[in-house]
Amino acid sequence: MSFTVTILGSGAAVPTHRRNPTAQFILCNDRHILIDCGEGTQLQLRKYGIKIQRINHILISHLHGDHFFGLVGLISTMHLLGRTNGLTIYGPSPLENIVRSQLEIGAAKLDFDLTFVPIDGDVSRIIFEDRLIEISTFPLKHRVPTNGFVIREKPKEYRLISEELKGLGLKLEHLPLLKKGQDIVLESGELISFEEVTLPPKPSFSYAYCSDTAYWETIVPHISNVSVLYHEATFVQKEIDRARTTFHSTAQQAAKIAKMANVSRLLLGHISARYEDTSKHHAEAIEIFPNSLVVEDGDVFQIK
Amino acid sequence: MSFTVTILGSGAAVPTHRRNPTAQFILCNDRHILIDCGEGTQLQLRKYGIKIQRINHILISHLHGDHFFGLVGLISTMHLLGRTNGLTIYGPSPLENIVRSQLEIGAAKLDFDLTFVPIDGDVSRIIFEDRLIEISTFPLKHRVPTNGFVIREKPKEYRLISEELKGLGLKLEHLPLLKKGQDIVLESGELISFEEVTLPPKPSFSYAYCSDTAYWETIVPHISNVSVLYHEATFVQKEIDRARTTFHSTAQQAAKIAKMANVSRLLLGHISARYEDTSKHHAEAIEIFPNSLVVEDGDVFQIK
Repeated sequence: MSFTVTILGSGAAVPTHRRNPTAQFILCNDRHILIDCGEGTQLQLRKYGIKIQRINHILISHLHGDHFFGLVGLISTMHLLGRTNGLTIYGPSPLENIVRSQLEIGAAKLDFDLTFVPIDGDVSRIIFEDRLIEISTFPLKHRVPTNGFVIREKPKEYRLISEELKGLGLKLEHLPLLKKGQDIVLESGELISFEEVTLPPKPSFSYAYCSDTAYWETIVPHISNVSVLYHEATFVQKEIDRARTTFHSTAQQAAKIAKMANVSRLLLGHISARYEDTSKHHAEAIEIFPNSLVVEDGDVFQIK
Repeated sequence: MSFTVTILGSGAAVPTHRRNPTAQFILCNDRHILIDCGEGTQLQLRKYGIKIQRINHILISHLHGDHFFGLVGLISTMHLLGRTNGLTIYGPSPLENIVRSQLEIGAAKLDFDLTFVPIDGDVSRIIFEDRLIEISTFPLKHRVPTNGFVIREKPKEYRLISEELKGLGLKLEHLPLLKKGQDIVLESGELISFEEVTLPPKPSFSYAYCSDTAYWETIVPHISNVSVLYHEATFVQKEIDRARTTFHSTAQQAAKIAKMANVSRLLLGHISARYEDTSKHHAEAIEIFPNSLVVEDGDVFQIK
C-alpha cells in the first residue's frame, strides 16, 4: 500500500508562479486526502494528474485565505463534473457557512453529500479512522485558531508465507486469524503457531502537518516519532522578529521541533514570497536536523 | 492614450490549463479596470505583468464561481502587499457580504477603502464616469442576475497645431477653450477660429462585455456600434439545446448579435472545457460576422 504526499502549493500568503498557496495531496493506503486548499488548488491537482473525484477527506488547517480560498472552486468543479460520492471537510466551524453561502448564491445544488466536521484549533483528538488509517488533529499556535494534523497507518497484518501454509490442513477461515497474529488449533488438536507461517507486519508510517504555526514546543508530543514532518518555515533566522510577530516559524525553529520530536524526516514549506532562493532555509535547518529539505510545488514524497 | 483588453481567462465553469476561468483587464486612458475575477486571476495578472495595485475598478458580472472565486484572494494580496488606495467593486449585492465575511474570518484589516456598488442585473445605467471615460451596465439573460458592461472613451479634445498658434497673441488660458472647440476673441477684437488652429479630435472607442448570457436581442441597443464586443460563445451549434437550457450562447448566436449591433469586431470567449479545438466556433461565427475571433488567455487586443 502506498503512502505519499504531493506538494501542490508550498508558498505563503502571497502566491508566486513558483509557489502556489498551500495545499497537499496525501495518498495513504488508497485513502485520498487533501490538506488545505489555497486558491488555484484545483488546477494544481489537474496539473499533477490527481483525480479530484477520488478525494473524500479535505482537512483545512485555518481560515487564512492562502489555506482555503480554493475550496469552493474545487467543490464547484467536483459538482460540475458529476460527482455523487460524499465529501467530508474537517476545519474551523465558520467554513461551512462560507462554502454553503457561495454555492447557494451561485444556485449550485450539489448531487453529493457535503459534510462539515468542525475542528476549531482547540482540541487534540482523532477525527477519522477506519480499518487502515487514522487521522488526528491537535492545536497549533497562530494568529487565528489553527489545526495541525497527523495521518497514521494502523498496525499492519502479519504476512502469510504461502509455501509454509501448504499441507498443514488449514481452512480458509484460519487465514485472517493468522494475519492478526493468532495461533490456530486444528481439529486434530495440532497447534499451528502464526510465527511459523507468517512474516512480521510491515512497519506502519505516519505523516504530520504543522502549518501555519509559531515555534511551539507544545506540539512535540503530538508529532513525536512520525516518519515525516511537514513544518512551516516561512522565514530564515534573519527575519526571526517578523516570524514572532506574525506567529510563523523560521527553518531553524522547524528543525528544532523535528529534533525534539525525533521524526525521521523534515519537509520545510510555506516559504515567504520574499525568498527566491531557499538555500539559507536549508542550511539553517540541517545544522540542527540534517534530514531536512525545502519542498517545491510538484514534489512527491514517499512516507517511509 | 491607450485602450486595450487583456484576456486573463477565456474558459467556462470548469477551468483547464489552457483556459483559466473568466477575467479581463481593461486599460482605458490610464484607468485600470478588471472585469470578473475567476479563481487564479491574481496569478494571471502577475503572469501578464499587470500591476495589481493600479486596478481601482472591479466589475463583477454575476455570482457564478467562475466569475468571482478569485476576488477575495486578489483583495487579500493587494492588502498584504501594502495597498492604501481605495478600490471600488461593482457587482451583485450579495458579493459584499461574501468578501467581507471571508476577510473578517481571516482577521484581515484592510488599510484601504473597499467600496461596493450594488448592480443586480436589473438596470441599465452609468456606474462610473470621469473626465475621460464612462462605464455603463445593462442586464444580460442568464440563470442568475447578470450584468453586461460597456466602457466608452468620452469625446476627445481638438488637437492644437503648435505651429499655427505662434504669433497670434493667444494667452495660456485660451488653449483649453480651443481644445474644447471654442473660438477666441482677442483683446484686439480679432477672432481666432478653433478650426484654424486645431485638428479634429481623435475618434473615441468603446468596448462591450457580455458574459454569461443566452442569445438575447434585447441587449443590442446597449452595445450598438461599439468598437469591440466580447460575447460569450460557450458552445457551437451542435450543442444549441444545451446552450438554451443553460442560458449560454453559441458562437453563431454571438455573431448574430454582433451583426445586429453593428460592432466593428467580435471576440468570442467563455469556451466550454469540452472543446480542445475552437475552429468550429470560428467557422460558425465568421459565416455571420466575418470580423470574429476566438480569444486565448494572454491575448491583448487594441480597442480601435
